[in-house]
Amino acid sequence: MGKIKIGILGATGAVGREMRTVLEERGFPADEVRFIASPKSAGLCLPFCGESIPVIEASDRAFSGLDLVLGAASRDVALHFAPAIKASGAVFVDNSSAFRLEPSVPLVVPEINPKDALSHAGIVANPNCTTIITLVAIHALAKESPVEAIIASSYQAVSGAGANGPKELLAQTAAIAAGQTPIPQVFPYPIAYNVIPQIGGEEYAGYTSEEMKMQNEGRRILHLPELKASCTCVRVPVIRSHSVSVTLRTRETISAERARTLIAKAPGCRLADDLASACHPMPLHTSQQDLVYVGRIRKDLTQERGLCLWCCGDQLRKGAATNAVQIAELLIP
Amino acid sequence: MGKIKIGILGATGAVGREMRTVLEERGFPADEVRFIASPKSAGLCLPFCGESIPVIEASDRAFSGLDLVLGAASRDVALHFAPAIKASGAVFVDNSSAFRLEPSVPLVVPEINPKDALSHAGIVANPNCTTIITLVAIHALAKESPVEAIIASSYQAVSGAGANGPKELLAQTAAIAAGQTPIPQVFPYPIAYNVIPQIGGEEYAGYTSEEMKMQNEGRRILHLPELKASCTCVRVPVIRSHSVSVTLRTRETISAERARTLIAKAPGCRLADDLASACHPMPLHTSQQDLVYVGRIRKDLTQERGLCLWCCGDQLRKGAATNAVQIAELLIP
Repeated sequence: MGKIKIGILGATGAVGREMRTVLEERGFPADEVRFIASPKSAGLCLPFCGESIPVIEASDRAFSGLDLVLGAASRDVALHFAPAIKASGAVFVDNSSAFRLEPSVPLVVPEINPKDALSHAGIVANPNCTTIITLVAIHALAKESPVEAIIASSYQAVSGAGANGPKELLAQTAAIAAGQTPIPQVFPYPIAYNVIPQIGGEEYAGYTSEEMKMQNEGRRILHLPELKASCTCVRVPVIRSHSVSVTLRTRETISAERARTLIAKAPGCRLADDLASACHPMPLHTSQQDLVYVGRIRKDLTQERGLCLWCCGDQLRKGAATNAVQIAELLIP
Repeated sequence: MGKIKIGILGATGAVGREMRTVLEERGFPADEVRFIASPKSAGLCLPFCGESIPVIEASDRAFSGLDLVLGAASRDVALHFAPAIKASGAVFVDNSSAFRLEPSVPLVVPEINPKDALSHAGIVANPNCTTIITLVAIHALAKESPVEAIIASSYQAVSGAGANGPKELLAQTAAIAAGQTPIPQVFPYPIAYNVIPQIGGEEYAGYTSEEMKMQNEGRRILHLPELKASCTCVRVPVIRSHSVSVTLRTRETISAERARTLIAKAPGCRLADDLASACHPMPLHTSQQDLVYVGRIRKDLTQERGLCLWCCGDQLRKGAATNAVQIAELLIP
């Protein structure tokens, strides 16, 4: 086929909006772009490459004629429409957690395991945002020597909870400035001037669903079935871009200097690592772009084969939309 | 002696103010309380126990007749006045980093090593705030089995940088709400809706001065000269209370259940640990009080003898002023 027909399921949400932007920015070779969303958005017209494209209501017939569908909807919506997408003959690149651990579904970060995408049976899964950002930061190290273990503490932006996250944070800071008590709706507690050390419900042995993704998804993406990962996922009052404090143990020792060299030339990474000039990855600098910034690279003082680093990336772009569009690009014949 | 004469050096700063509050709250048995500060605050009158006490300018003669001096000033000021305090016959309980690693100066957290305070030679040092909060959280575990290693990532409040930190954060959120560009002065970058992964300058192998305190001070407080600690200290847009994500390795295995039992009855700790009801330590709940809240207790998935936990405490109170006043109480004959 020449140019292809692509749809976005959930085109009006936080990730769907980014997918529209990224498709346009990258000049994705489509001769049809179809926006599909819930009934409440149907009929809305959205700009795309100088045109105005109407939003179509999600239904089993909405995918007819498409070659590719980017999924930016919830897990439940993805599970509901996957059979119809498959029946229509389209490949489903889904950002939800629905299919990530299915053995027959490739889980892909294009900088790390692009070939996996080609062995799909109709669905390719896009990994969790914090997992993508962390693995892009460390994949060059894993290639040098297998990663045995990851200990990570995250600093996750409110936009990771959808478009209402930033609205709530901004409304709460305004309320506090006006001497009022902020009322939480999106998050279980006020997030303004606070941090909340729980994202998701309990999944395994005191770890939340969000925290287990690094180990479960990391094993598949890095092709390291024995990988161990302990994460602490924390919501912080940042609008956009997740940061992660990472300690990793590799099979062989990698020096901090060697790690810096490897990360500096790793696809998808930008080295930002200089204490003397206060050059570090920060949400302030990493939002609205696609690279994962990596810094604070140093030997772990507690274990012989350990390294510590700090990384930061735009979780709505590289952590979601851009990664999905990159997968779609791999699937263009 | 009966009642004692106590002074605060740096009585008008962020920590000095808390020391005044804590002395008053705890009914410290003083028959004189003297407030000492820089020339610009001299003459100011501050309320204390229903009286109004004038601030005296810091000078070598300002300490005459005192039994105890609480230091809430900078390292340089502490170094400058320590000889005069000693010459006056007072014991100096100093919150700065000036004397913390001096072998002849006890470094004390009263819940952990109270007896050390009694072997002083005129100076007792108050540890770093993040170190105090983390060690109060884990000391019951260290008593059960020696801690070999700590990996910690901090979420540090802006008030840790002094009284101007909160002013800057609030001014920046107001500026952003008004569509203006925030101008950083206290911190090297805007802190509103951002996180900054550097506190202090480089001290050792890519670690900052703030980050090395956990290992250097932890060894002395826990009496574990071999303790290893890798920290990543991060400033977050929180007004008050530091949070720390901690992974520790003990010599023998401690189960999560056992750790929970030990922490629940540990002096200075409050257990706040229930994922199902979203009960966790958070700055929202831990400010303006003296306990360190501990939660998210679970097995580390990456190492056999590892535990992960999350703790949070008011770094101006237990992390500084309250700890110093508790030390002063130990020194009352």
